Amino acid sequence: MSKKNHGSLIILSGPSGAGKGTIHNELLKHDSNLKLSVSMTTRKPRDGEVEGVDYFFVTEEEFKKEIENNSFLEYAEVHGNYYGTLKREVERDIDNGYDVLLEIDIQGAINIKAQKEDGIFIFVMPPSMKELKNRLVKRGTETKDALIERFKNAYKEVNEMSKYNYVVINDELDLAVKKVEAILIAERCRVDRIEEFDVNNQEELIHELLVDFNN
Amino acid sequence: MSKKNHGSLIILSGPSGAGKGTIHNELLKHDSNLKLSVSMTTRKPRDGEVEGVDYFFVTEEEFKKEIENNSFLEYAEVHGNYYGTLKREVERDIDNGYDVLLEIDIQGAINIKAQKEDGIFIFVMPPSMKELKNRLVKRGTETKDALIERFKNAYKEVNEMSKYNYVVINDELDLAVKKVEAILIAERCRVDRIEEFDVNNQEELIHELLVDFNN
Repeated sequence: MSKKNHGSLIILSGPSGAGKGTIHNELLKHDSNLKLSVSMTTRKPRDGEVEGVDYFFVTEEEFKKEIENNSFLEYAEVHGNYYGTLKREVERDIDNGYDVLLEIDIQGAINIKAQKEDGIFIFVMPPSMKELKNRLVKRGTETKDALIERFKNAYKEVNEMSKYNYVVINDELDLAVKKVEAILIAERCRVDRIEEFDVNNQEELIHELLVDFNN
Repeated sequence: MSKKNHGSLIILSGPSGAGKGTIHNELLKHDSNLKLSVSMTTRKPRDGEVEGVDYFFVTEEEFKKEIENNSFLEYAEVHGNYYGTLKREVERDIDNGYDVLLEIDIQGAINIKAQKEDGIFIFVMPPSMKELKNRLVKRGTETKDALIERFKNAYKEVNEMSKYNYVVINDELDLAVKKVEAILIAERCRVDRIEEFDVNNQEELIHELLVDFNN
């Protein structure tokens, strides 16, 4: 999928309530080769947030200029603030051999798929639609209408599953995290990601073999 | 790769000295969804070997009839005895949802690839050709000429790597086993292996959601 020695872009996505955020956080704790790309935002920095570490903080004018320049892999407006993933940040990390992890909603993932065919797209599923319903109700953060809207939307979104490479059913968190970790390990073993193997020293080694054999 | 609910054929292959046999044995200890296919042989049963468990023991005439009938995924003659992997055995286990593991030399793997494009082909590599040389010498089971022949052959075989899906470098056994296990887990998460997800109960669940919400 990716170039040799390079990392991959990993997209963790799925309907809300599937638990992709929790899996995402667990992965970052364990895997030292994973990088979270730093997003750009027009939101004001909160106490303790560091420019270039938590976010790149910019004005709306600067953000819109980046949109015009087609700098974003994806961006969205949330509660009046813009948030975006910069192509140049992702590509630099991948070139440096890191796997870059993005946790994103399904529409965002489909948009990225159109630009990054070689990404690793992982669909996080709830164990059943009934369980998804239970999780959404349990959150208790939304009005009834918003909840029904979100649930109906999840039904539509499940149909997008076939556009992904992998499906991880989040029944038990530990198991789901292990599955995503396994996907990352397996992808790093793909034959097209293996570095050149040095096979140019045949004569020398056969000479050594004869010496070894006679000892 | 495979049909839904079905297992996969997993081919563990690589040059001799790469350690595929050891990895193979470790995998079978850990993974309860893995099946070793029972081979057919013309060799006489040894003490304690059970027909249909260790091997299917047949006469040379019976074996040759199976060859004529194209019953084998692969077969070979070793020290005057025939050994073969029966297609029907492998296919039955796969249909029953098991992953079937075959450990086989590179020529055998390439032959299987021609018949089973949807198999998972894993190339086990030594960490370097120098290390491969050391391992072959250390075995001490062969004449000098046989050893050189085997080593030269390994050089040729490494070029077949690109026909495989995955490469696992066997530097440290535990790590190599973990990588193969990760590949098996990841392959089971591939989107084309996921069972149908029940999304036909939308109205019923929205009704439940409203009841939940009002409580």
